[in-house]
Amino acid sequence: MSTLADLRILDHPAVPVTRHAAGSTIVSQGDNDREMFLVRKGRVALEVNGRTVDEVEPGGIFGEMSLIDRVPRSATAIAVEDTEVIPIDESLFVTLIKDAPNFALDVMRVLTDRIRRTNRKMG
Amino acid sequence: MSTLADLRILDHPAVPVTRHAAGSTIVSQGDNDREMFLVRKGRVALEVNGRTVDEVEPGGIFGEMSLIDRVPRSATAIAVEDTEVIPIDESLFVTLIKDAPNFALDVMRVLTDRIRRTNRKMG
Repeated sequence: MSTLADLRILDHPAVPVTRHAAGSTIVSQGDNDREMFLVRKGRVALEVNGRTVDEVEPGGIFGEMSLIDRVPRSATAIAVEDTEVIPIDESLFVTLIKDAPNFALDVMRVLTDRIRRTNRKMG
Repeated sequence: MSTLADLRILDHPAVPVTRHAAGSTIVSQGDNDREMFLVRKGRVALEVNGRTVDEVEPGGIFGEMSLIDRVPRSATAIAVEDTEVIPIDESLFVTLIKDAPNFALDVMRVLTDRIRRTNRKMG
């Protein structure tokens, strides 16, 4: 999976960090919250209807689709190891797009990578 | 399909326009060119292995995946009607991300919409 190339955004003064013990649920499929998350340490499994569809490593993001198009969570995210994530709400997201030159392109690369991998699965 | 909400970018002084007669091919699957296109007038069919997978209307974009991740075209784009498109190369793309506040988010919405629609097709 693509990860964010420009990890300097992690040093942005507005960036908070939350910690999740191994096995804990970070977001649940169907929920209406709207943040995306950048994985700082650890590993996160994405599950759809109880089936693991992807794993996200440090530098990777998840939850960005609910932030971008404001629909319920399409997957449950579970910490596979003790994990630190940076929650990014709409306000921080817009700040990062404006202030961090490669952030928008990095997010687009993650989305594009997901489309190509899904298309390959469809044959 | 999602379209770009902020069509004011069409008035950006750096924006060129190209015209394609009904039935003509705009880009071909497998090609290595790197522009994306914003449809200004007309309608564009996207074909993968000869099968139409999507249609793009005015305000919509196509070809963004090759621009974003620099891999060959995943689809052929054919003008269904007489069509005008705005080719956006990497330089203009970066300019638009920086100068047009909603452009990056609009492109992300198009990508997210494509992921959700593909996921629905997969059941």
